[in-house]
Amino acid sequence: MLGVLGGMGPMAAVDFMAKVVRNTPASRDQDHVRMVVCSAADIPDRTAAILGEGADPLPAMRDALRRLEAAGATRIAIPCNTAHHWHAALQAGTPLPILHIVDAVADTLAGPPGAAIGVPATSGTVRAGIYQSRLGLRGYACRIPDDAAQAEVMRAIRLVKAGRLPEATAILRREAEALAAAGCREVVMACTEIPVALAAADGPVRAGLVDATEALARSCVAACRPEAAPVAA
Amino acid sequence: MLGVLGGMGPMAAVDFMAKVVRNTPASRDQDHVRMVVCSAADIPDRTAAILGEGADPLPAMRDALRRLEAAGATRIAIPCNTAHHWHAALQAGTPLPILHIVDAVADTLAGPPGAAIGVPATSGTVRAGIYQSRLGLRGYACRIPDDAAQAEVMRAIRLVKAGRLPEATAILRREAEALAAAGCREVVMACTEIPVALAAADGPVRAGLVDATEALARSCVAACRPEAAPVAA
Repeated sequence: MLGVLGGMGPMAAVDFMAKVVRNTPASRDQDHVRMVVCSAADIPDRTAAILGEGADPLPAMRDALRRLEAAGATRIAIPCNTAHHWHAALQAGTPLPILHIVDAVADTLAGPPGAAIGVPATSGTVRAGIYQSRLGLRGYACRIPDDAAQAEVMRAIRLVKAGRLPEATAILRREAEALAAAGCREVVMACTEIPVALAAADGPVRAGLVDATEALARSCVAACRPEAAPVAA
Repeated sequence: MLGVLGGMGPMAAVDFMAKVVRNTPASRDQDHVRMVVCSAADIPDRTAAILGEGADPLPAMRDALRRLEAAGATRIAIPCNTAHHWHAALQAGTPLPILHIVDAVADTLAGPPGAAIGVPATSGTVRAGIYQSRLGLRGYACRIPDDAAQAEVMRAIRLVKAGRLPEATAILRREAEALAAAGCREVVMACTEIPVALAAADGPVRAGLVDATEALARSCVAACRPEAAPVAA
């Protein structure tokens, strides 16, 4: 049973679950992956913590993980890129395997090693170097928005959390296009709020967008389908 | 913490969670309702059981309820209308209050008592009389599709579960219009799969549609918001 440590933000967890369901070959309920999801919306802001401006979210994340263990989860996914700053700390506290979202993304990149990959993400994800370090191990060069563009990306992410999607979509499309114009053939939507706003994007920018949430969902389906053997109804 | 006994079907649970999030006044993650969701997709088919053609789903529902209790849920919602046939049996086995979807729907009906309410639903929900009995207590008269129309509604519900939304939308729109033409000013989408397919419906039929999933989500937000007091981030 897949355990989802979610709520960061709440709609991103919903988007992730929908992507797990849509990426599962199924013709009836019983074909689907069993999931237990803890949407712990009260987990303190991850970016604020990384920037030294807010409470440590690790205790609340550990609490959610304990609830998933109690409910019978057998492996864990975290649909929040920034939360992966605490991946190793969480993994050290549980025997359950925790999938890593950057590994899932790396498995879906089409470009050759050495290619520049655009990474719009939260300021916490950027500052913590979550993508730079782990994609670097796979031979990719991350390109991060400059300071002014990064401020715009953060503003758009907060707009998604507040339900103001059209404004967020306009900002994120502009920043994704800027990364593409700077030489990135692929741009990873490296915050779970970004695909919520860019789902409706069309035009040339769309082809090069890599959805980190979707990549994680596909990895989960591949990992869990053996447990999801059909049950007689 | 709201416990969601879901997975019947998997996308309906996702739709329900999205409606909880959207119906919560919030400007940041920490304003949202905390949820734990068990998407137990392997629960045997509810309609098949009620029609005497399939395995009893109650043991699997009780297992999911136990997982939600273990994870710390304090009240329970079941985003599956047909599963409410076992509402009393589930409630007898837990001290946690289980909201009832028909009560949530009744609270949102605009028509005066005595009004005819159209109820397209699974054949299990219809046969078990879930809406007829509980809406009847509130003074409403349920109108159920005739046998041929009921077969079409069931076919559309199975198409949603298989991800074939456009075909399902066409069928359900036709059946909702038929109930409206037969004198129902309000038509309850009384299977959680129906709003998934009818979300995009427009035209005159839209105004009279009551979304049972949305009604349950609103009841849950109203019940849970006192626990969702903002936490310092």
